[in-house]
Amino acid sequence: MNAFSAEDHFFMQRALRLAERGLFTTTPNPRVGCVLVRQGEIVGLGWHEKAGEPHAEVHALRMAGEAARGATAYVTLEPCSHHGRTPPCADALVRAGVVRVVAAMEDPYHEVAGRGLKRLAEAGIVAESGLLTREAEALNRGFLSRVRRGRPWVTLKAAATLDGKTALENGTSQWITGPAARHDVHVLRARSCAILTGSGTVLADNPMLTVREVVTPRMPLRVVVDSKLVTLPGAAIYGLEAPTLLATAVTDPARHAPFVERGVEVLVLPAAGAGLDLFALMQALGSRGINDLMVEGGSRLNGALVDAGLVDAIELYLAPMLAGTHAQGLFAWTPLERLSDACRVRVTETRMIGPDIRLSLTIESPPHNGEPA
Amino acid sequence: MNAFSAEDHFFMQRALRLAERGLFTTTPNPRVGCVLVRQGEIVGLGWHEKAGEPHAEVHALRMAGEAARGATAYVTLEPCSHHGRTPPCADALVRAGVVRVVAAMEDPYHEVAGRGLKRLAEAGIVAESGLLTREAEALNRGFLSRVRRGRPWVTLKAAATLDGKTALENGTSQWITGPAARHDVHVLRARSCAILTGSGTVLADNPMLTVREVVTPRMPLRVVVDSKLVTLPGAAIYGLEAPTLLATAVTDPARHAPFVERGVEVLVLPAAGAGLDLFALMQALGSRGINDLMVEGGSRLNGALVDAGLVDAIELYLAPMLAGTHAQGLFAWTPLERLSDACRVRVTETRMIGPDIRLSLTIESPPHNGEPA
Repeated sequence: MNAFSAEDHFFMQRALRLAERGLFTTTPNPRVGCVLVRQGEIVGLGWHEKAGEPHAEVHALRMAGEAARGATAYVTLEPCSHHGRTPPCADALVRAGVVRVVAAMEDPYHEVAGRGLKRLAEAGIVAESGLLTREAEALNRGFLSRVRRGRPWVTLKAAATLDGKTALENGTSQWITGPAARHDVHVLRARSCAILTGSGTVLADNPMLTVREVVTPRMPLRVVVDSKLVTLPGAAIYGLEAPTLLATAVTDPARHAPFVERGVEVLVLPAAGAGLDLFALMQALGSRGINDLMVEGGSRLNGALVDAGLVDAIELYLAPMLAGTHAQGLFAWTPLERLSDACRVRVTETRMIGPDIRLSLTIESPPHNGEPA
Repeated sequence: MNAFSAEDHFFMQRALRLAERGLFTTTPNPRVGCVLVRQGEIVGLGWHEKAGEPHAEVHALRMAGEAARGATAYVTLEPCSHHGRTPPCADALVRAGVVRVVAAMEDPYHEVAGRGLKRLAEAGIVAESGLLTREAEALNRGFLSRVRRGRPWVTLKAAATLDGKTALENGTSQWITGPAARHDVHVLRARSCAILTGSGTVLADNPMLTVREVVTPRMPLRVVVDSKLVTLPGAAIYGLEAPTLLATAVTDPARHAPFVERGVEVLVLPAAGAGLDLFALMQALGSRGINDLMVEGGSRLNGALVDAGLVDAIELYLAPMLAGTHAQGLFAWTPLERLSDACRVRVTETRMIGPDIRLSLTIESPPHNGEPA
């Protein structure tokens, strides 16, 4: 474990804030920030904006110019050592005469994985890692999930009344939460690489699932899980406002055709139980470079995903009302035998969003209900 | 509207903090604090502890002695003007030579209701009211509810999973929340004059509903709503640890006898629908001097009380788990037709209690479900 100074912490914090600017754009790349400091003064700042464009280090080195010589570079992720769409940043740092590099964490991507820091050390640069690692991990939990597990970081968004109801018995469901919460959902969407929903929600609510309330340089991919193809090609989600992927177990190309004609991409996956093989779906999304996936489904899809252990976090919006026991619930799965079998979560944040409450949860363990996970 | 100085606010705050000391003991009296100030210095402090014992003003005057002459008295409730169990405080203040009295609010109790301040003014004392009134109201919302509406301030406590479930489908319900939340519930119980539950909860959980985890000078009255007398006299709630009132629609004294023999008081009330006339129950509790009533029931009693507009506030404990749609819900009432018919609440506080969340809610409007309220 390296010992880092207060100054080191200060500049790495600054680099993390820079990295955050890429929250809405870097996909499928990680968000990275870089600060160059010489004799206690910042001489270069950079952040990665978009795949194919220069990395954070390159921006910072350009800004610093000759001032990079003798500087320390603070980067939120290990500098790359491979030729991807851009040349290796480790080499650029060496050439610029940087004398020390502090990375918040190593890059687990198989083409880097410690080689960036190694190359720096071989060039005589003091190369350290492990400063504010947790913060850096949080910034790229989607990228890290995909690289480490082969599937996206999955955040499920749900809106319910305070007694856990998403719709009345008669199906009435829209506008449970207020305008501020809905705006907040659009920000979450904009940060996501893809939005997943199910056929039930498409049929009941006919949502567009586009980003509308905030300006965003890209629309997330929309993914519809419709194992038996019960949705209609004319549904709003198949419109041209954003790309859409239709995941189904139906193999007949003739049944795909009306969707394909609308510009929808069809992905055939194995069936599992009453629906799709959701694990295969997540792997497929991971292999397409989806880092952060947001789920906006109904109780069946939500329940199946949580039950399968495929959900990492939940953003639960609770509206200040009570709907009563007859209304519809949040997560459908097989009845549990014991309370200790319930899905365990941890509350990471509670926040008021207008008159609504937003609870940020991470899932600690899925329910144990005798069903195969 | 009087204009009060910063100093006035400071001393009234002090009086409110003193009044709070009576939170667990003053019932059926209000909580009152008094601060006597002469030339900017506190010369007397007092608070009301227990019915039958001296009022806050008397304690403060005793402490001040001769120093009360020329002092200002800050009291959180208008000084009394009537001979109750103790002589009128207004007279005592006059005799002591106090020159100014500032009350946070008038006492709505019919034997006072402005007469205390009037008597002071008639004696040449500057008598003012309306400083930090909202805070003073909050402190005595139970007393004020009983005096103004003839019924207690009703706080419903419920514990559920984050998806609004209180028990599994098979009835398993205890220990949803953690030790810290359970301790918190005992503090709420200790502040209450009575704890109300229903026959369903007595049969399912056999609770004692006593204050155990905190030291308290008095046990709240336990009230069981059992319209058809389906609970058994041997249930834990009918034990001798605390007094119990059994509210029923059964009029046959022979069926009351086994309860009466155990020391339980039986209150016969009119039936209404499938249960008791809950409004009549609340009036009966009000006329017995119950200021603050806490409800710890199941979904039927909870639903019926909220539906009838008889619940003022809810303390909702949410445990960090998800139980699924098959588990049991919080509030049972007739299905709603529109979301705008849902019960409206306001979130007044969100707080973590150990791993659980406590939401403090006030009810703005009961559900509209076509049933008579």
